Amino acid sequence: MQYRDILYQVEDPVAVITLNRPDRLNAFTVTMLAEIRHAVAAAEQDPRVVGIILTGAGRGFCAGMDMQALDEISASSNMMDDSNAALAAEPGDAAMGPDFSIAYTYLLKVRKPVIAAINGPCAGLGFCFAVLSDLRFVERQAKFTTAFAGRGLVAEHGVSWVLPRLIGSSRALDLLWSARKFDGVEAERLGLADRLCDTGTALDTAKAYIRELARSVSPASIMVMKQQVYRHLMMTLGPAMEETNRQMEESLHRPDFREGVRSFLEQREPAFKRLGA
Amino acid sequence: MQYRDILYQVEDPVAVITLNRPDRLNAFTVTMLAEIRHAVAAAEQDPRVVGIILTGAGRGFCAGMDMQALDEISASSNMMDDSNAALAAEPGDAAMGPDFSIAYTYLLKVRKPVIAAINGPCAGLGFCFAVLSDLRFVERQAKFTTAFAGRGLVAEHGVSWVLPRLIGSSRALDLLWSARKFDGVEAERLGLADRLCDTGTALDTAKAYIRELARSVSPASIMVMKQQVYRHLMMTLGPAMEETNRQMEESLHRPDFREGVRSFLEQREPAFKRLGA
Amino acid sequence: MQYRDILYQVEDPVAVITLNRPDRLNAFTVTMLAEIRHAVAAAEQDPRVVGIILTGAGRGFCAGMDMQALDEISASSNMMDDSNAALAAEPGDAAMGPDFSIAYTYLLKVRKPVIAAINGPCAGLGFCFAVLSDLRFVERQAKFTTAFAGRGLVAEHGVSWVLPRLIGSSRALDLLWSARKFDGVEAERLGLADRLCDTGTALDTAKAYIRELARSVSPASIMVMKQQVYRHLMMTLGPAMEETNRQMEESLHRPDFREGVRSFLEQREPAFKRLGA
Repeated sequence: MQYRDILYQVEDPVAVITLNRPDRLNAFTVTMLAEIRHAVAAAEQDPRVVGIILTGAGRGFCAGMDMQALDEISASSNMMDDSNAALAAEPGDAAMGPDFSIAYTYLLKVRKPVIAAINGPCAGLGFCFAVLSDLRFVERQAKFTTAFAGRGLVAEHGVSWVLPRLIGSSRALDLLWSARKFDGVEAERLGLADRLCDTGTALDTAKAYIRELARSVSPASIMVMKQQVYRHLMMTLGPAMEETNRQMEESLHRPDFREGVRSFLEQREPAFKRLGA
Repeated sequence: MQYRDILYQVEDPVAVITLNRPDRLNAFTVTMLAEIRHAVAAAEQDPRVVGIILTGAGRGFCAGMDMQALDEISASSNMMDDSNAALAAEPGDAAMGPDFSIAYTYLLKVRKPVIAAINGPCAGLGFCFAVLSDLRFVERQAKFTTAFAGRGLVAEHGVSWVLPRLIGSSRALDLLWSARKFDGVEAERLGLADRLCDTGTALDTAKAYIRELARSVSPASIMVMKQQVYRHLMMTLGPAMEETNRQMEESLHRPDFREGVRSFLEQREPAFKRLGA
Repeated sequence: MQYRDILYQVEDPVAVITLNRPDRLNAFTVTMLAEIRHAVAAAEQDPRVVGIILTGAGRGFCAGMDMQALDEISASSNMMDDSNAALAAEPGDAAMGPDFSIAYTYLLKVRKPVIAAINGPCAGLGFCFAVLSDLRFVERQAKFTTAFAGRGLVAEHGVSWVLPRLIGSSRALDLLWSARKFDGVEAERLGLADRLCDTGTALDTAKAYIRELARSVSPASIMVMKQQVYRHLMMTLGPAMEETNRQMEESLHRPDFREGVRSFLEQREPAFKRLGA
């Protein structure tokens, strides 16, 4: 697969998707959005891949939707249609149910971790992708802004749902309303950054994290845990426990459980099954 | 409108509601509660006002319901009826639905930011108002206590619902159970203070924040974002995304979107429409 | 009642349940799990007891399910049945509804605070018990790991539901996926520790906390507040407010309210009613 606006590389066990329009701070085009979706689906189905990284080429992560494109859209108002039409591959786990099928929320149902390695400016729709990623590894100097309120827009593409569940509702309102710029250090203080990284190290830190996952934990466990966490945010405790009990029962019958216990007792590294198509 | 127990001032773009019984640490009376509600409705409908501040006169924010009043209530048990009967004006956005119509939760459906500028002791029902405000700008020396458990009361007026969504469930339980006193520095550490301010500066900091909102972001965006954040706390992701897509589509047709994009491309300050009645 | 794998002590107003297999880092046996449940029910019904502490004997808190037992289970797959069959006493408040009836989530419906005093390693099912406790008082050197993913297991026994509501969804995913070890200092930074304690002091700190509750606040308030916080995590705001209004009304008719107001006005310590069977 040849991509125009992204780079896609697999170095077992890591897939790296690099937004690659560095002269535009990697601002999204409709093509780039479709390519990300396609690459995420490819990585999800590739048994070499344990985790997926989103990062930016050059000095930025993503400046949001390209303003030229936005200007066109303010005339035609059809970004979402164009964008959806261009998206062919369907990533994500059908077991997650219908809640994760609109726009970029497919990231939450991908069966593998999606880590945003945020190496610089992260704004608007770029902020959405950061927030829809499972984890954020953030460089100190990276600058964030939600940007929407300054353009007369709303909290787009799931930020209003996810952000309060990451950092609480009042911190979310402050960031959405003010559209103020804040750096990686504050992102960590707010609970938005899962790791604070020195300049130039977010991508390597994310790669090391995924290599450690591949070395030590079960990809099937990772998959089920992601499903549990996001689904159980929307469930009352009783049904969540019933689902958990089924998932526990299933886990006891997977080879990974036996391997996990055996490798622990034998004090050796586990050899877990990778996830493919 | 002449108020007895509060001061109400509009300095475009800020409305300040000052609880004004400084000799009683601004403890609530039934009249004061009705006056706050009336003033909030007035500020919401005033197109000069972009944001609303609640603060206290003198050295306190609010000591809670007046204990003399409480003692009367322990005989008559009709505070809530009295209070509701006295409240005439109906602030808040009908689009928010029926969830925000009981007692002081109307603050969550006001179409403009409500910021508590907490300049001193904040207890009991005063704590409820702090928590039901969208943001809390808190002075270092300010002392908080939930107070309820020490009086044999429960988590009143929405604190049990809002507080865990601000700071997590165990921190909420600790503050509710122990009714312990804590200061602004700890409030920030717990995630309860959105800004930590030096003594005597919370009100000015909140004013500056609202002036910056007025200068740089769309009041319509603020309104919709508040609706999104609070409503989507109660919705599963799928329906929240459907609502978001409608809100995104609407935003693309508002003049504020065109103005937001144009002002950005022309590198000038935006001139957004204010919200009135 | 004679227990085999735990110690149970009541020092008014504190009940201490000590996991007591120090040579196995207090790893759970089916017997120990049943004994904890029995002891919690006894403490809940004992009017001397205001709060309940879970802690570990020796240098650990709890290493999780005993690995020998796990190895047996990987053959027989019937841990949950065995465990449930062995549990006779039924702790917890029926008023909490059906959501808290599966496995160890009974801890969330116990009418008294359950505090985990975490004095050392806390892993796997031990981590579940820490998270299902209402508060966590954690020693600096204590080491945590979720452990599950390293064994091919899932987020067991409610961790996937509770943990994101304590520390947010991405921090929960990181801890679940990586199963990485972290200490008490990081636990506090993540929002998982409600108190950070020096080595050897978690139990005493928890005892002092409960003594202070007994001295200053109403056990009935504590009970209702626990019910409010956990139930209202699962309710929309409107119904939560209706429930709160009922609970407020009931509280105004309890002797503890009159005692709370009187003792405050008379500047003396309150004498609240203890909760029994």
